[in-house]
Amino acid sequence: MRQVLTLVYKCSVFSKYSVSCVPYRLSHNLQWGSNKTHRKIKIPNPYKEIIMADPKIEEILAPFRASVKEQGDLVRKLKEEKAPEIDVKKAVAELKARKKLLEDKELSLAPAEELFDRAKMEDLIKRRFFYDQSFAIYGGITGQFDFGPMGCALKSNMIQLWRKYFILQEQMLEVDCSILTPEPVLKASGHVERFADLMTKDVKTGECFRLDHLIKAHLEKIKSEKNTKAELKAEIEDILVKLDGMTADEMSALMQRFQMKSPVSGNELTPPIEFNLMFNTQIGPSGLVKGFLRPETAQGIFVNFKRLLEFNQGRLPFAAAQIGNSFRNEISPRSGLLRVREFTMCEIEHFCDSKDHPKFDTVKDTKMLLYSADNQEQGKPAEITTIGEAVSKGIVNNETLGYFMARIHLYLLAVGIDPKKLRFRQHMGNEMAHYACDCWDAECLSSYGWIECVGCADRSAYDLTQHTKATGIRLAAEKKLPAPKQIEVVEAVANKAAIGKEFKKDAKVINDSLAAMDAASLDDLQSKLDSNGEYILSTSNGDFKLTPNLVSVKKSQKTVHVEEIIPSVIEPSFGVGRILYCILEHNFKMREGDEQRTYFSLPATVAPMKCAVLPLSGNTEFQPFVRELNQLLTNVDVSHKVDDSSGSIGRRYARTDELGVPYAITVDFDTIKEPHTVTLRERDNMGQVRLPLEDVPIVVRDLSNSKISWNDVEQKYPKFEQQENVKGAAA
Amino acid sequence: MRQVLTLVYKCSVFSKYSVSCVPYRLSHNLQWGSNKTHRKIKIPNPYKEIIMADPKIEEILAPFRASVKEQGDLVRKLKEEKAPEIDVKKAVAELKARKKLLEDKELSLAPAEELFDRAKMEDLIKRRFFYDQSFAIYGGITGQFDFGPMGCALKSNMIQLWRKYFILQEQMLEVDCSILTPEPVLKASGHVERFADLMTKDVKTGECFRLDHLIKAHLEKIKSEKNTKAELKAEIEDILVKLDGMTADEMSALMQRFQMKSPVSGNELTPPIEFNLMFNTQIGPSGLVKGFLRPETAQGIFVNFKRLLEFNQGRLPFAAAQIGNSFRNEISPRSGLLRVREFTMCEIEHFCDSKDHPKFDTVKDTKMLLYSADNQEQGKPAEITTIGEAVSKGIVNNETLGYFMARIHLYLLAVGIDPKKLRFRQHMGNEMAHYACDCWDAECLSSYGWIECVGCADRSAYDLTQHTKATGIRLAAEKKLPAPKQIEVVEAVANKAAIGKEFKKDAKVINDSLAAMDAASLDDLQSKLDSNGEYILSTSNGDFKLTPNLVSVKKSQKTVHVEEIIPSVIEPSFGVGRILYCILEHNFKMREGDEQRTYFSLPATVAPMKCAVLPLSGNTEFQPFVRELNQLLTNVDVSHKVDDSSGSIGRRYARTDELGVPYAITVDFDTIKEPHTVTLRERDNMGQVRLPLEDVPIVVRDLSNSKISWNDVEQKYPKFEQQENVKGAAA
Repeated sequence: MRQVLTLVYKCSVFSKYSVSCVPYRLSHNLQWGSNKTHRKIKIPNPYKEIIMADPKIEEILAPFRASVKEQGDLVRKLKEEKAPEIDVKKAVAELKARKKLLEDKELSLAPAEELFDRAKMEDLIKRRFFYDQSFAIYGGITGQFDFGPMGCALKSNMIQLWRKYFILQEQMLEVDCSILTPEPVLKASGHVERFADLMTKDVKTGECFRLDHLIKAHLEKIKSEKNTKAELKAEIEDILVKLDGMTADEMSALMQRFQMKSPVSGNELTPPIEFNLMFNTQIGPSGLVKGFLRPETAQGIFVNFKRLLEFNQGRLPFAAAQIGNSFRNEISPRSGLLRVREFTMCEIEHFCDSKDHPKFDTVKDTKMLLYSADNQEQGKPAEITTIGEAVSKGIVNNETLGYFMARIHLYLLAVGIDPKKLRFRQHMGNEMAHYACDCWDAECLSSYGWIECVGCADRSAYDLTQHTKATGIRLAAEKKLPAPKQIEVVEAVANKAAIGKEFKKDAKVINDSLAAMDAASLDDLQSKLDSNGEYILSTSNGDFKLTPNLVSVKKSQKTVHVEEIIPSVIEPSFGVGRILYCILEHNFKMREGDEQRTYFSLPATVAPMKCAVLPLSGNTEFQPFVRELNQLLTNVDVSHKVDDSSGSIGRRYARTDELGVPYAITVDFDTIKEPHTVTLRERDNMGQVRLPLEDVPIVVRDLSNSKISWNDVEQKYPKFEQQENVKGAAA
Repeated sequence: MRQVLTLVYKCSVFSKYSVSCVPYRLSHNLQWGSNKTHRKIKIPNPYKEIIMADPKIEEILAPFRASVKEQGDLVRKLKEEKAPEIDVKKAVAELKARKKLLEDKELSLAPAEELFDRAKMEDLIKRRFFYDQSFAIYGGITGQFDFGPMGCALKSNMIQLWRKYFILQEQMLEVDCSILTPEPVLKASGHVERFADLMTKDVKTGECFRLDHLIKAHLEKIKSEKNTKAELKAEIEDILVKLDGMTADEMSALMQRFQMKSPVSGNELTPPIEFNLMFNTQIGPSGLVKGFLRPETAQGIFVNFKRLLEFNQGRLPFAAAQIGNSFRNEISPRSGLLRVREFTMCEIEHFCDSKDHPKFDTVKDTKMLLYSADNQEQGKPAEITTIGEAVSKGIVNNETLGYFMARIHLYLLAVGIDPKKLRFRQHMGNEMAHYACDCWDAECLSSYGWIECVGCADRSAYDLTQHTKATGIRLAAEKKLPAPKQIEVVEAVANKAAIGKEFKKDAKVINDSLAAMDAASLDDLQSKLDSNGEYILSTSNGDFKLTPNLVSVKKSQKTVHVEEIIPSVIEPSFGVGRILYCILEHNFKMREGDEQRTYFSLPATVAPMKCAVLPLSGNTEFQPFVRELNQLLTNVDVSHKVDDSSGSIGRRYARTDELGVPYAITVDFDTIKEPHTVTLRERDNMGQVRLPLEDVPIVVRDLSNSKISWNDVEQKYPKFEQQENVKGAAA
């Protein structure tokens, strides 16, 4: 249970990419390419539900809403009364459980917009090699995927657009840091100690199971058995809902109570084990330098903070960004691209001292579906509002956070996320890391439920502070004061000669640690030296005893012109694979009246290729025109594919549709005549126009860059009428 | 000594990115940022030497050339006589040693074109954060680098151009495969067994040293000592030259003879140890699935061959490409970006059945500096020739190889490699892997010597064959025969029931292996069964004894319409970091008469940013124009930076020059007047023109895309005269 282990710590980072819930009891077919998935799934439309709240549905939901509200009020009361932490935690777990019941009910009652056939989509994804399991000829490894030409192009186009949307337009500082990370860095960030899930092992075979998955499967089995009593069934339902929030001890108790054994061998199981999710290795030949594959790209930015600040000429605010792979050794990867061991992230760390944003005005009218913590606690649904309103009402904490949320929203729509299946969910008080002021996840609705695709957290000064503590190097900026100021300076004065003599090679670490001490620690140092005549200094090299002959505390007055600021960090963090999966789901379509003809209605900006060039047949007279088009399209950087394989033109259209290619150019017998013309077909409505061959490259380029619309093209050029009359899947 | 261990095996892959030679005795300052590097290095111009061969220089070189030729002839003779392998090997080692002496002499005599100050360039690279050591605040890790905003943008622009040059223009199939690779894959490719360097360990502290580095340092020390006799000095010189080709035993003998100890502690050292250069880890929680970080991206393409072939509708030829990171756990990384532990590669695998190339004509007139194996063996210099001529004369094996070499050449020039410092060196017979027909490295001349930046090898059918053997899955294409053909089919007929009963879970592997047997193995199977009554089958699960009741060999006649082809593979493989480093060296310049003003004359295509926007001062009247330019440039996707910091305009020009930004726009008091105009400055010649503000974005965009030249701009707009009068480095 990653949530449990990290709850008090930095959940906003670690819960990144958790699959929030799985409605419709899909748990039995979460495996990639499982052949149990041949079932259609109803995808509800949450917007409809919100916009035209159906009184009948609201009647059914009323008791669920009331139950959430009651518990939300209790949590608030306990917090106000400063009740013991354990009581608050219990109440929050119960609140989450009630919320989940409400959400499941909402989703199940919402009017279904369409039927989604996941098996059919997965078949297309594999058949056309968008992506597929890695090393399949060697039996494959779960949680690892290779992107084929179409998936790779889609991913690369998404990233290129991301770079334009964020790095270019916001003039961010892009960095590209090492993946292999030495242990001390991840100790400071907290990953070595706390980045773990609970598992249990078969005591004989050593086979491992993720604990929550095991318990869930075991209890669901009992529940489905005929002779299980209704009372127990109800209790199990209750447990299943609360499972996400349970501690290791609580799970251990469940294992004992229900006498859980290995589902594979029937052997005994070990008590819960915390399994660190980072891949470890050794850097260098000695085997002594322990390293990990980074579990997030963010730390690479934090450790470069000083260089980046200097690059920005010492000024705040600035944002750094990184696109790259991260690695998590999941105990049991599942749900295709949604929980994998190796994945691409795009992360931004926006360092700032004030949370106003100069460009907030440009986005303030963006309408978004916000699911605030308050609404969640009160059992109310998500609401559509402008981001300007949300900030001014204090629902979203500040302009900078709001600005990024709006930009995330716009980016997701640009790459093809269905606005009706996108919401921003705020973390509730106890979900959030203790240092965070606010945190919102962009969640996309899919057949797996609401999926967290982008996290947008206010990490405050936490990370820079941690690395400052660990290294003794102050990761801070300086800001000019409006007027010089007299301040009292407290500092540790190290007797470097004596320290050097006594501690030899550790002297540097000790001196650095002394120099990095904050006011509270200095107070402590002073009082310990005064009262005990010694002070135990903790450093990365261990603890050292210091005596008054080695160190003293000096107080003095000083005139300062600048103040030191450890900036706050706003972190939008994108999971590329998850977004890509949701794009595919949101754009998977079937032709009306022909379920075999499926296609992806991908926006041209991210479509793997912009157009296909199709000679009507293998007639050699077509070849010079195909070559000319090929050259002209290349000249204007339009990615394309020539499909001169045999097969009717209709079958080849169907094939380009499957690849999500938005436009198709056909060379036919009329092309040979002067003036040379071709047909241009649009994928979604299958409309065709006839236009001069030399016009085509610029028209396709402008369509792909959204400079013109298909409607403009239909206005300008004559329509070309031809029935597309092909039944069945593409050859 | 990677060369030694892999010589007979697959040197063309594994020697990728070896630093071929280090002239000028720079070995003592190979460390990144070492402060011993404050010395200028003479960079010779090899073209000059070739084009206008100086008779005096040729006179000096003549005995060196003759010595190489003599040895080259000997090697050839030994090979013709089929002399014992050990004799050939020894002769080749001597040939290499003589070649190196010749090359060093050539470089030392060539007229120096310019003085290159590496320390100064490295200072600029760090100061402006192009790249720097990773995790420096934690003490850093050698062989790992973080790219800052400028390095990252340069790298990303190089990759974008690569994608356009190769993937888009050649319609290659781009893939994006897993980095974590399970052991069996790398066993089949040979990496688990043979991808190793020799090292030695301090027997007490465990400290590791790369053996060749240690021996070299030890011998150089002896050589430099006053009381070393001239005879020994000469012998040591000879050993140093031959070191690269020595076996583990030979090195071990040297260690004993010269009584080598740890240079750090003086302790004894272990005998040579083979150290595998792959980073290992465990995939999944059980700790039982061994995995490695991939040492090259190529294997990801090979294991996906069947999917890619299918995507290409079963047709050959096609090329797949991959851009991504690879990892090598170097024993002692050095030379900055040239030998690192984590690096980005761009690799192409071109699968083909014929080696003609339809587009060869488009490149055949490309002039290139080719250093053929013949010329190397004969002591002759590299020669400039067209690739068309090289192929027709058989110097380059085939059109496809030649086509890729020319495309590599053109790409390298486009990203800013100096054509005078680029050559293609052919591997000599004994350098090449046993399966390769031909292999050429694109080498760039730098202050570290000639650096291999791109390898271009003909890998033949080796890899697909290896993975076919390991998995039993035939990685082959089918080709239609001109006419149907009768063939004799030999196949192993497995008694699956009996095998299943006897071998249980291993049955599948055994059946797969039997199905994958080639003709020779089947012959062997038949004869062993006949003569011994049993056959030992080697599989990935171990060896199994098969008897006639389990398997037989069947021969039959069959009419076939297609033939099976295991395609050949041509592999161009680019080391992005190495190319990037050479680009920086080749474009590092100093302003005439002011050594403090250094800059990078990067081509606009790859420059980190295309332009800077500089308001003349902090005057608020300039701000609306700066904002407008910012917006207009963003609209046309021109990356730029607003530098409104204080500091004279000259200092800010100097700063943009340091970043390699090709154009600078200045907003001044004349801008405020109507019509609004600005100045545009070109970095290399520092010329300036005055032009309407609204013209600027398109002009800069077209300049950046090489659609127009600076000359065009100077023709069209009035010159703006102003002295740039700033001494010293940028602030």
